[in-house]
Amino acid sequence: MRSSLPGTPFLALDVSILDANIERTAAWAAARGLRLRPHAKTHKSPEIAQRQEDAGDTGLTVATVGEAEVFAQQGFEDLFIAYPLWVDDDRRRRLQRLTEQATIAVGCDSVEAAQRLAGLDVDVLVEVDSGHHRSGVAPAQAGELAARIAAAGLPVAGVFTFPGHSYAPGARGQAAAHEASALGEAADALRASGITPRVISGGSSPSLEATGDGLTETRPGVYVVNDAQQWELGACTAEQIALTCHATVVSHAGGRLVLDSGSKVLGADRAPWASGFGRLLDHPDARVVVLSEHHAVVELAGKSLPALGSTVRVVPNHACNAVNLADEYVVFEHGRLVDRWTVAARGMNA
Amino acid sequence: MRSSLPGTPFLALDVSILDANIERTAAWAAARGLRLRPHAKTHKSPEIAQRQEDAGDTGLTVATVGEAEVFAQQGFEDLFIAYPLWVDDDRRRRLQRLTEQATIAVGCDSVEAAQRLAGLDVDVLVEVDSGHHRSGVAPAQAGELAARIAAAGLPVAGVFTFPGHSYAPGARGQAAAHEASALGEAADALRASGITPRVISGGSSPSLEATGDGLTETRPGVYVVNDAQQWELGACTAEQIALTCHATVVSHAGGRLVLDSGSKVLGADRAPWASGFGRLLDHPDARVVVLSEHHAVVELAGKSLPALGSTVRVVPNHACNAVNLADEYVVFEHGRLVDRWTVAARGMNA
Repeated sequence: MRSSLPGTPFLALDVSILDANIERTAAWAAARGLRLRPHAKTHKSPEIAQRQEDAGDTGLTVATVGEAEVFAQQGFEDLFIAYPLWVDDDRRRRLQRLTEQATIAVGCDSVEAAQRLAGLDVDVLVEVDSGHHRSGVAPAQAGELAARIAAAGLPVAGVFTFPGHSYAPGARGQAAAHEASALGEAADALRASGITPRVISGGSSPSLEATGDGLTETRPGVYVVNDAQQWELGACTAEQIALTCHATVVSHAGGRLVLDSGSKVLGADRAPWASGFGRLLDHPDARVVVLSEHHAVVELAGKSLPALGSTVRVVPNHACNAVNLADEYVVFEHGRLVDRWTVAARGMNA
Repeated sequence: MRSSLPGTPFLALDVSILDANIERTAAWAAARGLRLRPHAKTHKSPEIAQRQEDAGDTGLTVATVGEAEVFAQQGFEDLFIAYPLWVDDDRRRRLQRLTEQATIAVGCDSVEAAQRLAGLDVDVLVEVDSGHHRSGVAPAQAGELAARIAAAGLPVAGVFTFPGHSYAPGARGQAAAHEASALGEAADALRASGITPRVISGGSSPSLEATGDGLTETRPGVYVVNDAQQWELGACTAEQIALTCHATVVSHAGGRLVLDSGSKVLGADRAPWASGFGRLLDHPDARVVVLSEHHAVVELAGKSLPALGSTVRVVPNHACNAVNLADEYVVFEHGRLVDRWTVAARGMNA
């Protein structure tokens, strides 16, 4: 480990806050009787996944075969690829190898996709649309699809959904209610088709606290580090944000703060309801109002500007995309640099 | 070179279109008597930079010291870091090494930043705000700043601006006019301070065609591959788009097309005026209407959906950020895979 700070901009991880987020959420899930299968697409880091496992989490969620390969290689043995995979010949070979290393479950929302999984030693979870309107079948259709997947010779383990419409102001509670009712209806539809759902899986970080009854597991991702979106939605406090981008003040042009943390390090995410392209951890009123590839222009609500050359901590809007732009985390504990962790699954999109 | 296609999603580069873009723009600049110093932050590729140099372009533009290091290492000897650098001790050492490998110019918009450059063998260009309101001084202030930079012992080579407000519908011509007038006023201000500007540098891809008089060089970046933003702004045709993301149709949920090309490969850029999060090259009416990390949901304007498992070509909104997410280009010529090129400067943000 190099002990000196890298040049800005870089992603900094506060390990004390990280650990507190992991432990608090694990305790919450245990108290609720839910399995916690965190989504590793947020952190892409075996070090963080290990801390989640050590806290009692049961298995990991990933989004791609490539992410599954990274975590299987590191010894994680229970992986759910929560995605409606389309398995071509190459992906089939890769999945085959994965099943020799780990227990693999995959998502599915069509008979056609299921047929391409036939013969692989994978569990299948039927994807249900609970209101986010991305992928997944309507809950009432889950039974018929499950029966056809089973007829293709594949074990149907249960149902899953992503209540992504929790990402809007005031929507967390309602999205959690949709999640519970959609999963409940889908699970009933499986039973009506003669299939007992062993796994009833939901989860998003904003809706987590409001999770309803009937789920067996939840798959939040962002909660582990948090970000400006969670902060704005009220799903975390500033004190629970473990990930920031350290940036240098390079200009005071126009009486505003210009930082060297652009969209190539923060990501360009900006939901219609977001108040900016990112926030400053130590200046809660500040907003990134202009973001280009290497400049973040910040308005500070009348406050005096931090000096040219000083370092500020920017909270990315969306942690998952910021992490996917970095090769490493610079790890701090109580303000002291203690380690660097590779973002091992960066760019593993295929 | 592996001759088989990688799994989707991946970035594909059409080398015939790339070459045509390079040659057309080089010929245009030559006819205008302008030096063309393309911005390498778009492509981050020594192979593409070499083709630009072979076409007669004079030097490269980069955004960071890290990008300069990659291109200097590959033998490019004339680099302009078009950014208001803040040079700490480590960056000073790196710039020192760079000046031993290449001719280096850097941007500057404050006396404080200039003082930190003192003693380095770099040319300095004063950054001027021509209406984009990001970094840079007002044109009338350029003379005073240039004089103070010169007083710090640094050679002032001239002035530069980025007319980024060209990125809006109908704004290209006006942004080019602002660029020319701001640079002209700034150059006059330098002369009034006794400094002869050798370099008067502007450039953005949307405003390129409308470039006014008085510039000595232009620094467009995106023109080399183009993207959905340029397409929507009328700065390129569909036939001039060299960069696409090959994506697989993974679902027909909700009667829409769901692709495996999410924001982790396309980038999350969406300007307020953009019609979507990306477009399909072969379906001009289609729009990516929902984008998450691994899903692009496409509406096809009533057309029948491409089959599950088929491949479609997605045009990212912003080429620079899409390229920065990829480790390589998969290079095609007349539809045939011919090579793979590393995105050598990916992630070089510091």
